[in-house]
Amino acid sequence: MDNYMNYPYEKIKKFCEDAFEKFGFNKEEARIITDVLLLSDLFGIESHGTQRLVRYHKSIEKGMIKVDAKPETVFETPVSAVIDAKDGMGQVVAYRAMELAIEKARKVGMAFVTVRNSNHYGIAGYYAKMASDQGLIGISTTNTNPIMVPTYGRKAMLGTNPIAIAFPAEPYPFLFDASTTVVTRGKLEVYNKLDKPLHDGWAIDATGNGSTDAANVLRCINDHLGGGILPLGGISEDTGSHKGYGWGMVAELFTSIVSLGTTSDKTGSGGKGGICHGFFVMDPAICGDPDAIKAHLSAYLKELRDAPKAEGQTRIYTHGEKEVFAMQDRLKNGINVNINTVAEMRDMAQYLGMDVVAYLGEEALSIKGKESVYK
Amino acid sequence: MDNYMNYPYEKIKKFCEDAFEKFGFNKEEARIITDVLLLSDLFGIESHGTQRLVRYHKSIEKGMIKVDAKPETVFETPVSAVIDAKDGMGQVVAYRAMELAIEKARKVGMAFVTVRNSNHYGIAGYYAKMASDQGLIGISTTNTNPIMVPTYGRKAMLGTNPIAIAFPAEPYPFLFDASTTVVTRGKLEVYNKLDKPLHDGWAIDATGNGSTDAANVLRCINDHLGGGILPLGGISEDTGSHKGYGWGMVAELFTSIVSLGTTSDKTGSGGKGGICHGFFVMDPAICGDPDAIKAHLSAYLKELRDAPKAEGQTRIYTHGEKEVFAMQDRLKNGINVNINTVAEMRDMAQYLGMDVVAYLGEEALSIKGKESVYK
Repeated sequence: MDNYMNYPYEKIKKFCEDAFEKFGFNKEEARIITDVLLLSDLFGIESHGTQRLVRYHKSIEKGMIKVDAKPETVFETPVSAVIDAKDGMGQVVAYRAMELAIEKARKVGMAFVTVRNSNHYGIAGYYAKMASDQGLIGISTTNTNPIMVPTYGRKAMLGTNPIAIAFPAEPYPFLFDASTTVVTRGKLEVYNKLDKPLHDGWAIDATGNGSTDAANVLRCINDHLGGGILPLGGISEDTGSHKGYGWGMVAELFTSIVSLGTTSDKTGSGGKGGICHGFFVMDPAICGDPDAIKAHLSAYLKELRDAPKAEGQTRIYTHGEKEVFAMQDRLKNGINVNINTVAEMRDMAQYLGMDVVAYLGEEALSIKGKESVYK
Repeated sequence: MDNYMNYPYEKIKKFCEDAFEKFGFNKEEARIITDVLLLSDLFGIESHGTQRLVRYHKSIEKGMIKVDAKPETVFETPVSAVIDAKDGMGQVVAYRAMELAIEKARKVGMAFVTVRNSNHYGIAGYYAKMASDQGLIGISTTNTNPIMVPTYGRKAMLGTNPIAIAFPAEPYPFLFDASTTVVTRGKLEVYNKLDKPLHDGWAIDATGNGSTDAANVLRCINDHLGGGILPLGGISEDTGSHKGYGWGMVAELFTSIVSLGTTSDKTGSGGKGGICHGFFVMDPAICGDPDAIKAHLSAYLKELRDAPKAEGQTRIYTHGEKEVFAMQDRLKNGINVNINTVAEMRDMAQYLGMDVVAYLGEEALSIKGKESVYK
């Protein structure tokens, strides 16, 4: 892989933790942020890992993310809490919110915690997995900057609005983590770089007509001309567009609506992120023997994997399986980081007064990279 | 509409209630079953209303639905219950289960009730709406007979597995009710009758390849040769097939898995329905002022409806809106019942010793209809 450099997981972890401490987070906060970011890289979801470091840095510099924010619980019951993140780092407040939901669910059987005035929190699945790692059922969702156009509209009114659900199972948990758009913006950017036409049903231009022209769609989005990405289900009700739009709304309900926070269409305005999250935890023990429930799901997941395959296909995956394999591979063989990202990390290290060679190796010094935001 | 007969809502209601009493249900049970069925007709969802009367009758005759079943709560906590329906009528046990979830949520703030060994329960949205009619957030889901093929498979392993979510709002609630398949079987049947090719991404044949041949796909399904309907998102991960499959799994988790019931792939075997349901209720008051939350959602829904439309489109709907309009129209102008369904109702009336002319009018006597299951 010519355009990638390989680093052991521990090395990137050390870099990220130290960098976030230099940005002003305390040791535990830096650990949490790093853990969320790198789970994405370990899972093979390159878009949400180290690739995003620059974006977080820029948001901190602009004051959109406040390093010293003191999130406040503004409403609380034994089964719930509403937290005002006070523009803090998404990962930090989300981690605390999920911890609180787990603590409450352990006592009452289930709990819901919602967060407003936050920022992007990384992959939704991380927080759902926090619950399943402890034998609980976890759901995590967030709204995002507007990019989803509602069915028959031409202006983005919802975010990618991912929802993640984790459920304990053997040999690995069920972990479903998906945007409610048909694809994410990253996919459009990849197709644009490759000069490939987009799939039908992925995006619309400023007129609201379907478009396969990635460059044009991205320009429409960036210049706020209209257009955007379609809901899961594509452009028409015939292919279920209204269903993806409905799931996007469900994410909105359990984030911005119940928290009285900022709906996706108004996020990012006035220099504020305004992102909202929702976390739900259920202890399977409220339905019976958790081991029996886990065994029942594990057997069903195995049946699904063993079910007859379509002609030309060799595997049926269950959700979270690919991520487990990717993680095993990367923990053993290291993480391949795109050289543009390495260049960004190098420039960030220099900006923060970190020793580039010690953290990223001699080679990192000579990478050209894209035009750096640090120059 | 040549193929339809128009009846006032009250007239069909009287017919259904009396017919279900004659099948052996008590007055309140007959009222509930009728209310669920006819909400579907009022909402304009013809597939799940009076059109299904014959199917319920056949299931009762076969002993799959037990009229005298005594559902039993087999596990219970202050926030939850697991009910064994003992093969009872889906609508009756589902109604009781949602009532129980509402009662518990009123006390604790949220609650979850799951049901196993039940039968088809009609439209998922009915039960979610029970909660929103009382100012609460309601979720209702069920598994069904197998028809969804997991991504890259060729055998149906999940059901249509609908999930419905209702949330109080003005001037009408948000009510999202959708199967997690791209379309339902009814759509394939309609296209087959019209001799129209299916859309790409709707269905696969026994080989697991996409097929637009409705007759062939239906034959594959009916003869258990393989094939079936695709998840929301179609045939490939490029269009999000794994996401629809994931949502189908979520329905399975909160129905058959947590209740230790029958997964979709094994329902309908051994003369038993084996259908499982899940009901979740959350009181918005656990997140703050319910009126403020309702106003916040209502404002956002209005913004969505008022958002710029795609070229050639005149409306952006919010979920549940079409159903409200359909209901207003039908309560005022009556329900149009397909003459084949009228013929089935007439034959059912004769079978049950009911006065056809009094219930359905003189005209009903002369309809030919399809070949009757009563002959």
